[in-house]
Amino acid sequence: MRAQRNESHYTLHPIGVVRSALTSLETAPLQGDEGAPEAWVEVAPSAAQAMVGIEAGDELFVLTWLHRAQRDVLQVHPRGRREIPLTGVFATRSPDRPNPVGLHRVSVLEVSARGLRVAPIEAIDGTPVVDIKPVLGAIDER
Amino acid sequence: MRAQRNESHYTLHPIGVVRSALTSLETAPLQGDEGAPEAWVEVAPSAAQAMVGIEAGDELFVLTWLHRAQRDVLQVHPRGRREIPLTGVFATRSPDRPNPVGLHRVSVLEVSARGLRVAPIEAIDGTPVVDIKPVLGAIDER
Repeated sequence: MRAQRNESHYTLHPIGVVRSALTSLETAPLQGDEGAPEAWVEVAPSAAQAMVGIEAGDELFVLTWLHRAQRDVLQVHPRGRREIPLTGVFATRSPDRPNPVGLHRVSVLEVSARGLRVAPIEAIDGTPVVDIKPVLGAIDER
Repeated sequence: MRAQRNESHYTLHPIGVVRSALTSLETAPLQGDEGAPEAWVEVAPSAAQAMVGIEAGDELFVLTWLHRAQRDVLQVHPRGRREIPLTGVFATRSPDRPNPVGLHRVSVLEVSARGLRVAPIEAIDGTPVVDIKPVLGAIDER
């Protein structure tokens, strides 16, 4: 127990990857509800059993690792607009933050051996996926 | 770029810790809306600047590291009820999952140098905090 409490970092292992037509940060919308496309969340074969129970129409959170983010940023001008005062990253959805975990609320369009086809999702192609969770009440109370 | 894509894991560094009267998994409610108490999210001094802009009344997601979870579990009986068929952990909020990141939607009750007093939150005392995000539209569009 003490060893766990004193552990100073934790390791995420990707369980999948986003496959999307979005290939550049510059053209990616800032949020999923701002015109983001559908994409495949490809799930590794080793994690496929963890998808059992997910169906088309479900509402999920997809957690990603924003692999191109800067981790030493504590404040930003929200949405890159310099007229907005510097704001703590915990009060924004900036990808630049100490632990750049992305949180995407999506609808499931299709489930297959490949993974989940979802929309909308603003992550670029190649973004690692670290977790998938139901929006509360959507699945495990069914 | 290739090096990043081939990286097989990512490292989370805690930015804070939950301080709660909940001290045992057995008495913790399964979800925040099932009678979970308020708690302090203590934020490390090194990350304090990242809180700037958060105010009492804001709605946030707190991301935790569920340090007592089992990472080799892919399916569970939801809510521990054996009469419910085995379900993939990505379709449940089970803490046991490949990357045990907890997702807690909370309201901010108080902001201080210590951190954020929030409710409801079902994490036990000592749970590491890895990120804090606004529920969309709550803060950075203000």
